[in-house]
Amino acid sequence: MLNPRGSLLKPGTWSVELAAIAQGVLKGRPREIGRAISAVEGDGGSPRLLQALFGRTGRARVLGITGPPGAGKSTLVQRLAQLYRKRGKTVGIVAVDPSSPFTGGAILGDRIRMTEIYTDPGVFIRSMATRGNLGGLARATADAVDVLDAAGYDVVIIETVGVGQDEVDIVKAAETIAVVLAPGFGDDIQAIKAGILEIGDVFVVNKADREGSDRAAAQLAMMLDLSPGAEAGGRGYPEPLRWRPPIVKTVAPSAGGVEELARALDAHGAALAASGEGERRRRKRARARLLALLEERFRGRVQTSEASGGGLEEAADRVCSRSEDPYAAADRLFSAVVGT
Amino acid sequence: MLNPRGSLLKPGTWSVELAAIAQGVLKGRPREIGRAISAVEGDGGSPRLLQALFGRTGRARVLGITGPPGAGKSTLVQRLAQLYRKRGKTVGIVAVDPSSPFTGGAILGDRIRMTEIYTDPGVFIRSMATRGNLGGLARATADAVDVLDAAGYDVVIIETVGVGQDEVDIVKAAETIAVVLAPGFGDDIQAIKAGILEIGDVFVVNKADREGSDRAAAQLAMMLDLSPGAEAGGRGYPEPLRWRPPIVKTVAPSAGGVEELARALDAHGAALAASGEGERRRRKRARARLLALLEERFRGRVQTSEASGGGLEEAADRVCSRSEDPYAAADRLFSAVVGT
Repeated sequence: MLNPRGSLLKPGTWSVELAAIAQGVLKGRPREIGRAISAVEGDGGSPRLLQALFGRTGRARVLGITGPPGAGKSTLVQRLAQLYRKRGKTVGIVAVDPSSPFTGGAILGDRIRMTEIYTDPGVFIRSMATRGNLGGLARATADAVDVLDAAGYDVVIIETVGVGQDEVDIVKAAETIAVVLAPGFGDDIQAIKAGILEIGDVFVVNKADREGSDRAAAQLAMMLDLSPGAEAGGRGYPEPLRWRPPIVKTVAPSAGGVEELARALDAHGAALAASGEGERRRRKRARARLLALLEERFRGRVQTSEASGGGLEEAADRVCSRSEDPYAAADRLFSAVVGT
Repeated sequence: MLNPRGSLLKPGTWSVELAAIAQGVLKGRPREIGRAISAVEGDGGSPRLLQALFGRTGRARVLGITGPPGAGKSTLVQRLAQLYRKRGKTVGIVAVDPSSPFTGGAILGDRIRMTEIYTDPGVFIRSMATRGNLGGLARATADAVDVLDAAGYDVVIIETVGVGQDEVDIVKAAETIAVVLAPGFGDDIQAIKAGILEIGDVFVVNKADREGSDRAAAQLAMMLDLSPGAEAGGRGYPEPLRWRPPIVKTVAPSAGGVEELARALDAHGAALAASGEGERRRRKRARARLLALLEERFRGRVQTSEASGGGLEEAADRVCSRSEDPYAAADRLFSAVVGT
């Protein structure tokens, strides 16, 4: 009953097959983990599957790695995974490319770039791409993290490519977020404005063997000092954490600086746990996830329900012909779907 | 009654002042146009103001210019505006930076970069930045276009910086979209994957005096040929249009190629009008705009209403403590807000 992409029946349905997949995930079987992620990737996800797994989540350490294209994130993630493996930990990786469904290149690309760890049974790598539904991608990423968490991976890494709000929304499912830049980013300041300075718990200047890496680190330090909340001792964090994002220099191909990066990530995790900020963030993530699920349901209701769906099309016609303005039409439709 | 940002009272309220602003906009007065855009920029926008203006919209030719940072879009937009001015047309420009509210740099930046046209009374330039609410930014951009349209500008140009879904959502308010790249983009293919190939009606290789511009144009032509729908004769467009996005080479500082770009934009507009595709797109935009307004209202309802708001916080607590899974909690809340 699997289609070629491996997604399952209809969302919300339960089946012997889905039960078998859930069992396989809980036993850590890669094949079932892959199928489970395919199931959560589909429109609306696979609520029943997630419900079956949810009680076993919350044990993994979830890290996010983001930054502009070309910063060398994939290689860095590979080195980081290898380091955790040496420490005896298993690692799940979700590589998310919120850009176009145009090439499907991300899926192949990340696997090629991570060849060294791709055959390690203690590492699970999965790429996810947009396929047209961005809200759904952040939701699917959080669900995939739950799958890997329930499957028992000690560390789950979310890698996103890009610097926009989409990537920020996706990587926010992580507890600790590292923002990876490469020397020269300062030449194009716009590329690093996109909210990523606010979300970084740790900053990485990768390709630190290249010219300009000291300058890049200095520039970054300056930008962090100037960022809103810097003087408040934690860029928006409440007082207890008192975390100043460190800047780590790495050379991913040779794994230079990767130990230091892992230490910085660990230190942030420890600070979160000690301060109570970890709990506060966990609750914030739960709230955001709920809100996103509610919005997904609302969109479905507006577009499919007999009354409102027809209403939407008719209203679009009216707005298009300028016989009703969009605000009046939205008010009318909203009342019809939700009540006043 | 204006706050320092110029936003007005509460959304939805009407006042003598708002009426005066609407009157001023309809008379094409820059001061009131600026105030009107400030009003629509606020949370929830200014429905009453838009309602007062909506009947006078639909006359402007709306163009979108997007592309990665550093492609030279602002200079190109300036040259394009100057060309339209020579043709006797007035031009409204909305420069949208959906990246961080971090620096506020966009506002000053665009004005500086567009100094040559900034003092021309036949040109109105307005920058808009995120201020934390991205869904709201696409909505505000569409509203700002309506304001400029109602104010009588012949051509309205939406300029966005970036290559993500956010920029795509914003620039989609335009009838004809030009995607601007610079030589060398092919070195970092990820930067141009982000949905922008699908939305371009016209492609521009700017900085065409630089080495590699021929190669860039050739690469781009190849990517367009490979893109889904290319063989269907219109990359997702229905048959009647049969538009193959042209690739135009420009050198913005010297205005080289800008005439050709304007001709390509005009040709696309003519093709839209002749084929009926223009009407189909207009309806699609109206529908998307309605849906976005409905979602904005829903978010407001969930977060503020006594019953559901309290429910959201309590549910977030339950999910956070893993006493309820997010899907079950979302179902429960959705029923409470919308009914089953």
